Amino acid sequence: MTGASARARRLPNIPATRPEPITTPELAPGATIGILGGGQLGRMLALAASLLGFKCHIYCPDPQSPAFQVSDAYTVAAYDDEAALAAFAEAVDVVTYEFENVPEETARFLESRMTLRPGSHPLAITQDRLVEKNFLSSIGIPLAPFAAVDGPDDIAAAVDVTGLPAILKTRRMGYDGKGQTRIDSLDDTQAAWERIGKAPAVLEGVVDFALECSVIAARSTDGETAAYDIAENKHHNHILKWSHVPASLSQETQDAARALGAKVTEALDYVGVLAVELFVVRDHDGERLIANEIAPRVHNSGHWTQDGCLVSQFEQHIRAVVGWPLGSAERRADVVMENLIGADAEHWPDIIKEPAARLHLYGKAEIRPGRKMGHVNRLK
Amino acid sequence: MTGASARARRLPNIPATRPEPITTPELAPGATIGILGGGQLGRMLALAASLLGFKCHIYCPDPQSPAFQVSDAYTVAAYDDEAALAAFAEAVDVVTYEFENVPEETARFLESRMTLRPGSHPLAITQDRLVEKNFLSSIGIPLAPFAAVDGPDDIAAAVDVTGLPAILKTRRMGYDGKGQTRIDSLDDTQAAWERIGKAPAVLEGVVDFALECSVIAARSTDGETAAYDIAENKHHNHILKWSHVPASLSQETQDAARALGAKVTEALDYVGVLAVELFVVRDHDGERLIANEIAPRVHNSGHWTQDGCLVSQFEQHIRAVVGWPLGSAERRADVVMENLIGADAEHWPDIIKEPAARLHLYGKAEIRPGRKMGHVNRLK
Repeated sequence: MTGASARARRLPNIPATRPEPITTPELAPGATIGILGGGQLGRMLALAASLLGFKCHIYCPDPQSPAFQVSDAYTVAAYDDEAALAAFAEAVDVVTYEFENVPEETARFLESRMTLRPGSHPLAITQDRLVEKNFLSSIGIPLAPFAAVDGPDDIAAAVDVTGLPAILKTRRMGYDGKGQTRIDSLDDTQAAWERIGKAPAVLEGVVDFALECSVIAARSTDGETAAYDIAENKHHNHILKWSHVPASLSQETQDAARALGAKVTEALDYVGVLAVELFVVRDHDGERLIANEIAPRVHNSGHWTQDGCLVSQFEQHIRAVVGWPLGSAERRADVVMENLIGADAEHWPDIIKEPAARLHLYGKAEIRPGRKMGHVNRLK
Repeated sequence: MTGASARARRLPNIPATRPEPITTPELAPGATIGILGGGQLGRMLALAASLLGFKCHIYCPDPQSPAFQVSDAYTVAAYDDEAALAAFAEAVDVVTYEFENVPEETARFLESRMTLRPGSHPLAITQDRLVEKNFLSSIGIPLAPFAAVDGPDDIAAAVDVTGLPAILKTRRMGYDGKGQTRIDSLDDTQAAWERIGKAPAVLEGVVDFALECSVIAARSTDGETAAYDIAENKHHNHILKWSHVPASLSQETQDAARALGAKVTEALDYVGVLAVELFVVRDHDGERLIANEIAPRVHNSGHWTQDGCLVSQFEQHIRAVVGWPLGSAERRADVVMENLIGADAEHWPDIIKEPAARLHLYGKAEIRPGRKMGHVNRLK
C-alpha cells in the first residue's frame, strides 16, 4: 500500500466489474462486527449492533474516537498499516465502514481476506465525483449538467455545458462544502482553479432548487431493498442543520425518491444503507428530482429514524452487513432532527427539558466550531 | 468489610434515618457513570447513558459481564475488594447499581466517598423482605398478610396471621422463585423450614389474584416523580415471561398503581427508577392492588419502554442519577414484551423477520436453562 499523500494525487482505478466477493453466511448474535472509522456514525452503528447482541471492534487512527467508548474492542492504527489491518481482519467476522473516504487500498486489502459490506466498489465510485456522476447518468438518474475539468483551460468548455453560475468541485475528498468554489464569470477561471487547490475537478451547473432532500435506502444480501420516508434537509454553512420528516413534497415525488434510492442500491449491488442527496426543482411541470451525490454509508439526514422508526438506519445497516433480512422502514412519528454543531451542544440543559425531544450526544470531549457534537430528534 | 459468607448470615443494620448524602451537582455530558453490576440491566443502562454522551465504568466480579462489551471501562473485582472499590470511586463521577443484592457494606463504602444514587438506604430496606413489608405497611400500602418466621416453631403462629396455603420466603437473597416454598398444612412446617435452608424468613398469605402487574416509577434529585403506564405481567417457572401494555385494568386501578409507585419513591427519598410488583385482586368491590415487592432498580417489566416511549426506563434512571430532570414517561404505542429465556433465544431468526418486533439480545455467550438471554418488544 502507498502513503496518504500518494493516494490523494492518484486517480482511482475503477474495476469494470465487481471483484468476486468472499461471502459470509448469516452471522449469529455474538459475532464481532469490524467497523472502519470511529466517529459518531461508527458509534451509533456500534450501539445498534449491541442491541442485537453483536460485539463491535472499531478501527480508527484517532485515539479519541467516540466509538471506542461503546465498543468491545478497538484498534488505533493508520489505514495503511497492513499488519494492523491483518490483525483486525483476524479478530472480526465481517467488516463495514462508517465513512466514504476509507482509502480504496484499505478496502481492497480487507476484501481480499474477508467479507467487506458494502464493498470497495461503491467506495471507488463515490470517492470520485466524476465517476459517481457518470454512474448515476448511466442508470438514468437526472443530474445537474456537469463536465470534467482537468486544468484551468478546461473551464471555458465546461461552462458551455453547465452555464453560469457554476460550482467547481474537486473530484476527490470534498465534503461539507470543502474543496468547492463558485464561478460567476469566465474571468474567474484561473483563480477558481487555484481556490480548489489545482486538483482534478468537475464543473456543475447551479440548480435552482425549491428544496433539498435525501433518501436513505438499504439493500440486503438477498437483494431485498427498503427505503425510509424522505427527509427534507436544511443546511447552514454547508453543514446539515435540520431534517424534517415528512418532507413537504407530493406523495408522487416521495415515492419517486424512494424508488431512486432503491435503484441506486441495486445498480451498485450494494449491501447496507446508503443515502442519496437530492435537489427538488419546481416548475410548470411540477416537481422534479435531481441527484446531488451518494453517501455509501449511514447518513446524518437519517438520524431521525432512531426515534421515528422501530428499526433505525443504524440497525438496518447492521442487519444488512450481518446477512440478516432488512427490518421495517415504516415511519411511526413525524420528526424534526436538529444537528448540534459546535456550541449548539451547550444547549443540552434546555433540550433535556423538552417533553417530546430526544437528545443524542456523541461523547466528543472538545467543542469546536463546525464540529458535529450531537443531534436532537423532536417528535410530533 | 466482611466476606460473602459472613454477609449472608448477618442481618442488616438498618439506619433509622438516611445518612447525610454526599451531593453531586448536575453532571454534564462527558462525565463517567459508575455502575455496580454488569448484567443485562447494566448493559442497557450503559447503552442509554452513551446516547446522552456519558461514559460508563462497570464494576462486576464476573469477567464475562455483558455490560463490559458496551462500556468505556470496567473493573473485575469482588464487591468486598476495598482497594478496587476505592479506585473505582476515584474513576467515576457518580455511582448507581443494576441489582438489589449489592452488599450493603459495598454501598456504604462507596457512599462515604461519593454520590451513590439510589443510596444504601433503599438497598437496606429491600434486601430484607420483612423490613420491606414493614416499610410498605408504614406508608399505607396494602400487602398480603405476613408474619416473621425465625425458626420452625414460629410457623404455626404465623399461619394464624396468614392462613393456609402460605408461602415461606427467606428474608434475604431470594429472586425468581428461589428461597421460597409453599406450605399447605401445619404438618409441613419442619420440612418447609429445611427446604428454604433454615434462614430467617417471612410467611406470606397466598393472594388469590386476578393478575400480576407492575409500576415503573422514577424520582429525580429535585423530587419530581414520573411513572410509566402499568405493565401486566405473566410468569413462567417463576420468571417473568410476558409484559403487556396497556394492562387489562380499569383506568382507576392504573392511576392508583402509578400513584403507588410515585409514593414509594418519595417515601424512600429515592433517586432513580424502581419497580413495584403488584397483585390485582378482583372481588365484588372491584379491583384492588396488593403490593408484592420493590425492586430498587430498572426492571424487566419495564423493558417495553425501550420501544414504546421516547425516554426508556434506562434513560430515565440515568437522567435521575446524573441529576437531570426526568424525561417524559408518555407511552407512544401498545407493546407486548416477551422475555427470551434459555433456548427461546434460538428463535432470533424468526423474530427478526417480524415487521413490528424489535429484538434485544444481551451478548451472553452461553445459553443456559432459565437464563435471560434477551427480549423482544412487539408493537401494535
